[in-house]
Amino acid sequence: MSLLVVGSVALDSVFTPFGETADALGGSAVYFSVAASLLHPVRVVGVVGDDYPVEALDLLAPRGIDWSGVERARGESFRWKGKYSYDLQSRETLETRLGVFASFQPKLPAAWRDAEYVFLGNIDPVLQLNVLDQITAPKLVVCDSMNYWIKGQKPDLLKLLRRVDILLVNDGEARELSGDWNIHRAGRWILDRGPRLLVVKQGEYGALMIERDRTFYVPAYPLEEVFDPTGAGDAFAGGFVGYLARSRSVSSAAMRRAMVYGSAMGGFAVEGFGLKGFEGVDAAALAKRVRAFVDLTHVPEAEPIE
Amino acid sequence: MSLLVVGSVALDSVFTPFGETADALGGSAVYFSVAASLLHPVRVVGVVGDDYPVEALDLLAPRGIDWSGVERARGESFRWKGKYSYDLQSRETLETRLGVFASFQPKLPAAWRDAEYVFLGNIDPVLQLNVLDQITAPKLVVCDSMNYWIKGQKPDLLKLLRRVDILLVNDGEARELSGDWNIHRAGRWILDRGPRLLVVKQGEYGALMIERDRTFYVPAYPLEEVFDPTGAGDAFAGGFVGYLARSRSVSSAAMRRAMVYGSAMGGFAVEGFGLKGFEGVDAAALAKRVRAFVDLTHVPEAEPIE
Repeated sequence: MSLLVVGSVALDSVFTPFGETADALGGSAVYFSVAASLLHPVRVVGVVGDDYPVEALDLLAPRGIDWSGVERARGESFRWKGKYSYDLQSRETLETRLGVFASFQPKLPAAWRDAEYVFLGNIDPVLQLNVLDQITAPKLVVCDSMNYWIKGQKPDLLKLLRRVDILLVNDGEARELSGDWNIHRAGRWILDRGPRLLVVKQGEYGALMIERDRTFYVPAYPLEEVFDPTGAGDAFAGGFVGYLARSRSVSSAAMRRAMVYGSAMGGFAVEGFGLKGFEGVDAAALAKRVRAFVDLTHVPEAEPIE
Repeated sequence: MSLLVVGSVALDSVFTPFGETADALGGSAVYFSVAASLLHPVRVVGVVGDDYPVEALDLLAPRGIDWSGVERARGESFRWKGKYSYDLQSRETLETRLGVFASFQPKLPAAWRDAEYVFLGNIDPVLQLNVLDQITAPKLVVCDSMNYWIKGQKPDLLKLLRRVDILLVNDGEARELSGDWNIHRAGRWILDRGPRLLVVKQGEYGALMIERDRTFYVPAYPLEEVFDPTGAGDAFAGGFVGYLARSRSVSSAAMRRAMVYGSAMGGFAVEGFGLKGFEGVDAAALAKRVRAFVDLTHVPEAEPIE
């Protein structure tokens, strides 16, 4: 039983109304792994430059994250710089420097080709396909993407969709990919192109899971203080896929519970700058948060009416 | 046991990408009553001009709506004209003609002063207070408002808040009233000013119920076809208050179920132009929709993990 993620291992510089970070650990594979490792060991495939503080990654290894699939290349690490609006509802990318990521060709260690649960983080769909080609018999493939690839490489993305079980994107991306502003029609459009299931992240409003004949909704955890939305979507993915790997199930019921774990992790992610929101989060804190989620939408039985 | 609503009885002209209506029955009291009457008889207080097609209101009377508190005044009825964006996410008011509503002074028939469940539709807070003054011993007072009153008559609105049990507004209104963009802090701000409970309508994302120590979330019903969002918020209120009146309860559990009835009614409202979405909706259709809502957020028990 194994869980594998491919994605960016980056250095983030983030400005929010409440503070800022400079060259902090970030990237889709990092947020995913920190969240997923609360539920199941994770193997990471990616690349960093020779300027990357790999000792910081090593500090995370005891969580159950195996970084040995992260190649160290000559050159600069992937850097992202962004600024959030006063209400954290929108963000502007100030700078993206691909560095060694520009020529990244993912190579799975031979022993990792047996990966069963796979998360393809938001990278070039050609690379995502390349990773899939290296995996012998995946049990579940979950894939993220973004507007950049939807606009520039739609044919590759559609080719990829035919080989993934679950597409996990935000609502703007689902709308742009399908060309339909109605999220439920957009969902049907996407399910017609391969995935068995679509997960739509909606930020502070929660997330939707659209199956062909059924929809499930999980709210976002109600937080009075949100510090940094960076990585919330990847943390969601980590909770979602991590729970499925842990439960060794791909049933519809397990997917619903996985959505709750995803939303719980998204909440932790935004409660602190960078990865700080996960400090002190252990199995007990996670279990408590999950119970709170179940209460958030619990509809009591009707009282008898005279 | 009685349920009373005060609000506008209007003529709406609505443009959406899918069609338009001209001088159609509308107004907060009308949408509220059509929804609430599926659950409990409703008494309506309002005003119309001598141009109003009162026979159209009479056609709705067999549903259990008592229009005898709607005064007929000389002059023009309240008219609203609006246009929705291509994705129905925003709307522009093209024209508002207050007509007889400008000098409206609500007068409750003497026999209606015993009202127990009261909905104060979105009108001048001074008039809402005026209505409350005429009611002997309300069991539950639910109140709507809008940006116009928040901006122009905040002191009156704050005075009103001290006398209502539940404020029911959309998220933009809750933010504007509290001056806080975080909806959970906004909720606390509002609960500190009188109401026991805040209901926040969030359109296609559903609705939140914020109590002092607990939050409940109900999604919007997943619809692939939405025709006309007009009146959805008032229909939500009709389902919410109608269910509470029917269940003769103001318990927290009843409130949660009332939220589901509210969201169900909001869904019916948007499925057709004007009031058409309610055609053919009977107790059985409503019960079916409510069951579907419970499934929408149902989190299954965990399967055992080896």
